[in-house]
Amino acid sequence: MRRLEEEVAERALAYVLDPPSDPNDVINYASPDALLRVFETSVGMAFADDAPAEPSEQIVAAVDHVIHHSVHTSHPRFLNQNFAGPDPVSVVGDWLGAALNTTGATFEAAPVFTLMESAVLSKLGRICGYLDDPDDLVPPLPPGLFCPGGSTATLFALQLARHRHQPDIAQRGAAGDQLVIYVSSAGHYAATKSAALLGIGIDNVVKVASDSVGAMIPSALETAIAESVAAGAVPLAVIGTSGTTVTSAFDDLNALADICDEHELWLHVDGCYGGSALFSPSHRYLLDGVERSDSFVWNLHKMMGMTQQCTALLVRDPQQLDRCFAGKADYLFQPDKLYADYDSGDRTFQCARRIDVLKLWLSWKHHGDVGFAARIDHAVAMADHTRARIAASEGEFAHVTGTFTNVVFAWVPPELRPITLDPESMSELDPTTHQTLHTLPPKVKAQMQAEGTAMVGFQPIAGLNTFRMLFMNSTVSTDDVDAILDRISDYGVAAMSATEPTN
Amino acid sequence: MRRLEEEVAERALAYVLDPPSDPNDVINYASPDALLRVFETSVGMAFADDAPAEPSEQIVAAVDHVIHHSVHTSHPRFLNQNFAGPDPVSVVGDWLGAALNTTGATFEAAPVFTLMESAVLSKLGRICGYLDDPDDLVPPLPPGLFCPGGSTATLFALQLARHRHQPDIAQRGAAGDQLVIYVSSAGHYAATKSAALLGIGIDNVVKVASDSVGAMIPSALETAIAESVAAGAVPLAVIGTSGTTVTSAFDDLNALADICDEHELWLHVDGCYGGSALFSPSHRYLLDGVERSDSFVWNLHKMMGMTQQCTALLVRDPQQLDRCFAGKADYLFQPDKLYADYDSGDRTFQCARRIDVLKLWLSWKHHGDVGFAARIDHAVAMADHTRARIAASEGEFAHVTGTFTNVVFAWVPPELRPITLDPESMSELDPTTHQTLHTLPPKVKAQMQAEGTAMVGFQPIAGLNTFRMLFMNSTVSTDDVDAILDRISDYGVAAMSATEPTN
Repeated sequence: MRRLEEEVAERALAYVLDPPSDPNDVINYASPDALLRVFETSVGMAFADDAPAEPSEQIVAAVDHVIHHSVHTSHPRFLNQNFAGPDPVSVVGDWLGAALNTTGATFEAAPVFTLMESAVLSKLGRICGYLDDPDDLVPPLPPGLFCPGGSTATLFALQLARHRHQPDIAQRGAAGDQLVIYVSSAGHYAATKSAALLGIGIDNVVKVASDSVGAMIPSALETAIAESVAAGAVPLAVIGTSGTTVTSAFDDLNALADICDEHELWLHVDGCYGGSALFSPSHRYLLDGVERSDSFVWNLHKMMGMTQQCTALLVRDPQQLDRCFAGKADYLFQPDKLYADYDSGDRTFQCARRIDVLKLWLSWKHHGDVGFAARIDHAVAMADHTRARIAASEGEFAHVTGTFTNVVFAWVPPELRPITLDPESMSELDPTTHQTLHTLPPKVKAQMQAEGTAMVGFQPIAGLNTFRMLFMNSTVSTDDVDAILDRISDYGVAAMSATEPTN
Repeated sequence: MRRLEEEVAERALAYVLDPPSDPNDVINYASPDALLRVFETSVGMAFADDAPAEPSEQIVAAVDHVIHHSVHTSHPRFLNQNFAGPDPVSVVGDWLGAALNTTGATFEAAPVFTLMESAVLSKLGRICGYLDDPDDLVPPLPPGLFCPGGSTATLFALQLARHRHQPDIAQRGAAGDQLVIYVSSAGHYAATKSAALLGIGIDNVVKVASDSVGAMIPSALETAIAESVAAGAVPLAVIGTSGTTVTSAFDDLNALADICDEHELWLHVDGCYGGSALFSPSHRYLLDGVERSDSFVWNLHKMMGMTQQCTALLVRDPQQLDRCFAGKADYLFQPDKLYADYDSGDRTFQCARRIDVLKLWLSWKHHGDVGFAARIDHAVAMADHTRARIAASEGEFAHVTGTFTNVVFAWVPPELRPITLDPESMSELDPTTHQTLHTLPPKVKAQMQAEGTAMVGFQPIAGLNTFRMLFMNSTVSTDDVDAILDRISDYGVAAMSATEPTN
């Protein structure tokens, strides 16, 4: 037998080159107990108190179990999360980074990747309008940094906001003004989780009303700020969302920037999901005004198919990173090292940092700007097809909300057709109808998982469970969309006949 | 030509199976400008405003440049960081995780990895003494979670401490007691960076005096706590360090636990580096008392050769994770999903989370407990050899400090031999001697990088630059140690003759 690492690598590569694509192979579903029993046939899932070194043949068998029972997120019928369909070039770029296993913190340990980060962050900074001209950038200072995820990047951005407001707060602690952060009611929970961690307090996060699609209502933000001031609190920052989690709504960033300018507030843009619309000439208008924000977080591991994680935090004034985060550890960041002014590690909170830039750099060189734009345009085209198919379904499906790549909808039992479901009025449904519609998605989804035919999420909208399909995998076709809708319909019919026997 | 992803994967696998090992191949050094010129011969480092899709042949050439000019952290003469020598099985485990690209947040998206995390965290919890018996663990609740690095894990641990002290602080904000955190003067900067981010304030981190090796002096901690109380502040948490960055010093955790018990303080153990001593029956005594701590952070990507990152945060009372971090996002964590009680995502700050457990699980199954112990014992044996070689060098090298895997030393020019260098008295060296010794390490290191013969760090100790060699790569031999010391000697002689011409 070859070395274990060769056996594992061969299987990983085979998976990347030819991922599962059979219609029933999105997942080979098993309960936790059943999974544990599967692993008992090889090396077991758990570790004994004196865990032995297992034979390689048995470990290879376990690797086959891992692959077989994992959710196949590259399958064109996996539409369950805001990531899907990793770009194969990104996957192997990630591999090369793991093989070279270093930290991005210093030029000394990462000479190539330090320059690569500058190149990619500079390009991203130009795309979002923070840099007018590549020559604006004084090397080696890139206009941002890579972070281990979107929530963490938002945490860092809010710390930057607080630091600008009160530069001594890092030193002296937060026992000063009651600072307030504003985010739309459809925005991500990174806002409240960050406020809790920063000591700002969840109570000081104001959820500003949003419209029926999920975009913040600017006049409601004005009102909320006035209420904070009247209560003696100090408005600190507004989080504009570009691509909300459920509906992919885009806040009007120019309207938010106008308000932030007037009140001298930090504008942070959470573009974790929708930031990638900037790659598309057809869709980048959705982020008009982002160039006026102070910070912008962009998860390339969502729409762009980079592997987990690939998060860029861009900052309009990059020198704030040093002023806010520098710790000056003398064992690591030493002026007497060669090219120490290229070290990026003291501009962030993290110390050692995985090389997340390499996969993005490789993928971008491979696809070019045109290829990146095509991925976005294809995703929106698939969502448009889904919306059209729902509109033409004669009441079988009811569109609820969503925009851009996201379609939120219900499957409607024949006896309830036609029905209008919109977020404002859904809570007024009669209790029986509400109960019928609300309990269907979990049943449909359970059957879908059991048969492995698709993965589509559901979530409550105004208290009513509804399906969400969202698109980013470049291999999804209209046939996939049609087949998934057909399956939902089949499972809906089956669920209705199971729960409501004809009598 | 084959698909680009095959070409890249082939190169990555070749690197893993047969990493650079020639004596002059630790790094092929190039300045930033020279590196940029190298990439100009293929696809260029930067991206134009309309970046084209580059031909695959050119991208493959660039990949060869990336590999050639990266620091070879798997080389046995790379002793520059507190990570080195990635385990090949870990590397390909990382690859498989990237290929399967999912998030660890929910059972639905990560059925296998959710169970794997429970299995590994349970084993780690038993090793550190948080769990007496595997059956103590109520599945699916593991005694901790994976984090994107050690600093982040310490940040989360301190938030847990604050939450236990004042459960409403997450909700209401930090404007209450002046909370104080204690860490040794040799402890990691994650303490101050976390205090800044949490709103506790860097001023409220007390750096407790440590001994000449770098271990906290318990009586000094007692004094510091008394001073805080006398000043009207509220002691919150003590960070015990198991393996400091420069010297690998271990605080006396039982002494710290006694003090924390007396004052009802949270004890967090930063075992990012030295926690892995627990794997070795010969060295695990260094962490005696860790079972009495409240939280413990352990970077498996340091001594154990997992790829960046693989960080476990273990918590004695796992239910605190839910109480402190739950955000209850209804689009993601829904009770009506199958096996939703297995979801780990709402027990931490992060949302989507890379699968860092797979590589550790595979590596551990492959090596077993005995193999993990051997890696630790080998590392200490190499450090012991280095210390012996220095002791026998007749004054050519002077040992300064360090313990366990870390050796801090100086190369001494012939005219200064013999010299005693200990951290307490080094600041009293005469200025000329100080200047000579202080300026040597950067010159030696620059030459070492230029020739690519080794990577060894240096840092100021009491204001004097000294070398640090630290060991964890299982392929390092005593011949490597001897060769590196010989090179340091050669470069030292050359640096002296260059700066002090005979006259």
